Amino acid sequence: MLSLLNRLPLSQWLQAYNRETFVSDLIAGVVVAIMLIPQGMAYAMLAGMPAEYGLYCAILPLLLYALLGSSRSLAVGPVAIASLMVASSLGQLQLQTSSEYIRYAVNLSLLCAGFLLLLRLLRLGDIVNFISHSVITGFTSAAAVVIAISQLRHILGLPRPPEGEFLPALTSMLQQLDQLNIASLLVGCGAIAVLWWSKKPLAKVLQECRWPQAISQPLSKAGPMFAVVAGTLVVWLGELDQSLAVSTVGLIPEGLPSISFGLIDPSTWQVLALPALLIALVGFLESVSVGTALASKRQERINPNQELLALGAANLGAAFSGTFAVAGGLGRSMVNHSAGAQTTIASLISALLVAVTLLWLTPLFYYLPKAVLGAIVIMAVLPLIDLSGIRKCWQFNKADALTLALTFTLVLVLGVELGILLGIGSSILLLIYRASQPHIAIVGRVGESEHFRNIARHQVSTLNDTLALRVDESLYFANTRYVESFILQQCAAAPHLRHVVLICSAVNFIDASALETLENLIIKLRNQQVRLHLAEVKGPVMDQLKNTELLQELAPGQVFFTTDEAMRSLAANPPAAHPA
Amino acid sequence: MLSLLNRLPLSQWLQAYNRETFVSDLIAGVVVAIMLIPQGMAYAMLAGMPAEYGLYCAILPLLLYALLGSSRSLAVGPVAIASLMVASSLGQLQLQTSSEYIRYAVNLSLLCAGFLLLLRLLRLGDIVNFISHSVITGFTSAAAVVIAISQLRHILGLPRPPEGEFLPALTSMLQQLDQLNIASLLVGCGAIAVLWWSKKPLAKVLQECRWPQAISQPLSKAGPMFAVVAGTLVVWLGELDQSLAVSTVGLIPEGLPSISFGLIDPSTWQVLALPALLIALVGFLESVSVGTALASKRQERINPNQELLALGAANLGAAFSGTFAVAGGLGRSMVNHSAGAQTTIASLISALLVAVTLLWLTPLFYYLPKAVLGAIVIMAVLPLIDLSGIRKCWQFNKADALTLALTFTLVLVLGVELGILLGIGSSILLLIYRASQPHIAIVGRVGESEHFRNIARHQVSTLNDTLALRVDESLYFANTRYVESFILQQCAAAPHLRHVVLICSAVNFIDASALETLENLIIKLRNQQVRLHLAEVKGPVMDQLKNTELLQELAPGQVFFTTDEAMRSLAANPPAAHPA
Repeated sequence: MLSLLNRLPLSQWLQAYNRETFVSDLIAGVVVAIMLIPQGMAYAMLAGMPAEYGLYCAILPLLLYALLGSSRSLAVGPVAIASLMVASSLGQLQLQTSSEYIRYAVNLSLLCAGFLLLLRLLRLGDIVNFISHSVITGFTSAAAVVIAISQLRHILGLPRPPEGEFLPALTSMLQQLDQLNIASLLVGCGAIAVLWWSKKPLAKVLQECRWPQAISQPLSKAGPMFAVVAGTLVVWLGELDQSLAVSTVGLIPEGLPSISFGLIDPSTWQVLALPALLIALVGFLESVSVGTALASKRQERINPNQELLALGAANLGAAFSGTFAVAGGLGRSMVNHSAGAQTTIASLISALLVAVTLLWLTPLFYYLPKAVLGAIVIMAVLPLIDLSGIRKCWQFNKADALTLALTFTLVLVLGVELGILLGIGSSILLLIYRASQPHIAIVGRVGESEHFRNIARHQVSTLNDTLALRVDESLYFANTRYVESFILQQCAAAPHLRHVVLICSAVNFIDASALETLENLIIKLRNQQVRLHLAEVKGPVMDQLKNTELLQELAPGQVFFTTDEAMRSLAANPPAAHPA
Repeated sequence: MLSLLNRLPLSQWLQAYNRETFVSDLIAGVVVAIMLIPQGMAYAMLAGMPAEYGLYCAILPLLLYALLGSSRSLAVGPVAIASLMVASSLGQLQLQTSSEYIRYAVNLSLLCAGFLLLLRLLRLGDIVNFISHSVITGFTSAAAVVIAISQLRHILGLPRPPEGEFLPALTSMLQQLDQLNIASLLVGCGAIAVLWWSKKPLAKVLQECRWPQAISQPLSKAGPMFAVVAGTLVVWLGELDQSLAVSTVGLIPEGLPSISFGLIDPSTWQVLALPALLIALVGFLESVSVGTALASKRQERINPNQELLALGAANLGAAFSGTFAVAGGLGRSMVNHSAGAQTTIASLISALLVAVTLLWLTPLFYYLPKAVLGAIVIMAVLPLIDLSGIRKCWQFNKADALTLALTFTLVLVLGVELGILLGIGSSILLLIYRASQPHIAIVGRVGESEHFRNIARHQVSTLNDTLALRVDESLYFANTRYVESFILQQCAAAPHLRHVVLICSAVNFIDASALETLENLIIKLRNQQVRLHLAEVKGPVMDQLKNTELLQELAPGQVFFTTDEAMRSLAANPPAAHPA
């Protein structure tokens, strides 16, 4: 038991924990809770769930992450993009009742946890490497647009929910514009104004007041709470829910989520499997990205495999709390860090405050207008639309910019799931396409040295009957045809050639396709009275080749240790006269 | 018009065409037709179509390929794997009537042509590079097993067609074994014996007879025709179709296919799109592989983009002939080549003979037993099960062997479409996984030379406060985290380090993810009083970096031309004293 405890990440800091650290954690925990409570309800609405389920996401999952997570300042809980993905995947199923919707969401959390723990078991924390930065930028930017559009409905006070994302949502909104609720719109715009003001102008005011940090810090992050309080007061005092039909959160059941679980027919899991995997991956990616960024500010490191375990447990916690999938959030984690969180105790304090809210404070949210929650979501996701990142990417590398633009467009047109899948696919295909045309340099000797350089760029000397070339890439299926036809073309263009020296200094491995191609190439070259030689073959590649017949088939071609040795040997031994 | 003609591949040989070439082509054309007629009917049966549709595949498509194809000896027409894929994709749709099945097959051909022409338009002939040798070996071996199992039914004379591939087909066969038709089995086994005998033993006999090649050549390839004639005679004379219920081909409508076309609802194209793309890709791959192999025997080259056009036209021809998709076949092309085909005129002769057969000879096939056609298919696909290729792959490279085994298993268990898709996917993921852990060498100076080598393998000298390392891979999303954490770990382990020199001699490009990582790395290292320097940056990469702010952010870190220069400069300028 003790050794198990020692293996938990928190054992690293628990001994050095003291009063000072606790005060830091306490402040950070309070600040995050002030953000988390309105955000939780807002993200629940985004996920298509009743408001309290967003708060359920913020108790048990936080406890579990605090116990297992390797990041000290990652703030786990309901996040915008995962909530959107939950809504998007369940929206397609056309579930009839609200309780069925919730049951499916719970099973989605469970599957999500299952995938994360499976990845942990396979130690595949590195799987995030398969998703390129441009895909992420394109995806999050497009997801932010989709989210913003979906929440606009609440600000406009439109009655019918849209059937689908982006385009259908836009169309449906435009069709309902005649049912626009002006009061709702005013409340929403007011909330946006409060949120905007509390971002920078408020911080400036607070700075001028020179209040102690323990007070100014929470105040500067309390924008969502201000909006909630102001919106609630306006509706309550003006009785806007009755007189002007402003839609509000309404009755929230008091009390903590019950630990229970309603499994659906496992055959239905099939349709949930792919969405769950994607939510798990995207959530994991977001968490690891922000966790790594924060850890590096303190010279700490986070362990991706440990994060898989911790996030898996957090989602298991979400499933057993009967709610939707969670992840480490970008915004709240940044706030948690900058508010001074030293350890995951900060998260425990946030969770405690959420629990207190659920136990005794839910009646306060009865008059909370949905327009305010919509405004909170919109203001939270707008910074995700990374215009400068898009511009930078375009200037730097057109292939990356293409991937970004493609992912962005596909997410808008085809939806989040298909969009990110095709985005990842296209980035990988583009990579292979680039690798399929490797750089090949024909080289010659620099002066009398032992160095060989590209004849196109340097003043070098070559042998008349020998072609020496260096392939700047490992040899494998994607480029093997290209290399073969490059060599054959060179030989066809110079019929006096008798030797081809393939310099393998950049070849880190050879796959079965390349082996096959090399074997065929030897035969084809032999038909043209040309011998293939290898030079500078790396140790591991040579070990590989020793298991094959290639070295026998190569004869009388040779394997030279260095290019210098190859060229001196071939210059000294002119080939036998060949039939004309 | 004349310039268009000059651009056709046949313009290369049409002028030198003479009587001798024609005689060669004539013999090859006859030999191929003798194989093609029974194979065509057999593959039609495999595709789930009436026998005559296999012959329809062998007229118009051949004419079009002869006009446009860049291979002189590729024999286009119905092929085993494409036929299986047609049956597999249409089998899932549970079409009610035979005429509806045919109409869907025609639309599949049309879509297939569309994809090939689209790929041509995009000049994506290199797309075949994305499919590795191990995926192809695994796929064709498994497809051959599936095909053989599916045809076993005809030899056993079982009444009900199986619902599904491989496992369901096997189960369904075993369940029906009590309805086994002994007569059919004997006919089938007889046909197999004839086919086996005509492969090698017959060639030996013919060699001993010393007949002129114009006679012995066609005879040696006429195994399928012998089986057809013998089987037909046995059934006809013994009236086995009546007395013993041996299933036969029956009435084949006389005459050429009418040029017509029944479009289906384009919304149904959605379900046909993926199968059509896969048939197009696999067919293209098979054609290019065999075409390249044959062309290289004659020092010719085939042009993949021209092949896309020619195969697209051939499939358009198939669609307008009202039949299923075609490709360049492995077996018949080899026969065409070895029978002496000089130009595509050989294919025109084959097509002419098929047309003659359809016009006047179809009544001859009335008594042709289906067991014989099944035997022809089985004997044609068995050589595709490439056991020695599998063994060789296993010995050479476990990753390739894994891909092969995975593709093989997935095709059997999940069917041909999903199997090949997942096979291709896994080969690409495996590649990226390998690339995500690039080789990184920490290097030092060899003696007093300008050479720097891996400190783990060579006797080298290093500077105390400088880490020089070489990454043997381009920097991009898949490996950028790995490289970053490698460098940070090295720095954490050696806190006295003040300089890191990243040697970019093997870096052929940097993508946006890697740029972002480098920018972050500079900041993280700076926090630890370490400067990042670059050395041996290649020209194109330097051009890329000049468009970014990286070079400014690097300062006071520098970009050195060579590692030697970097190390001499850093040794000469010891860093300023740093705070303890």
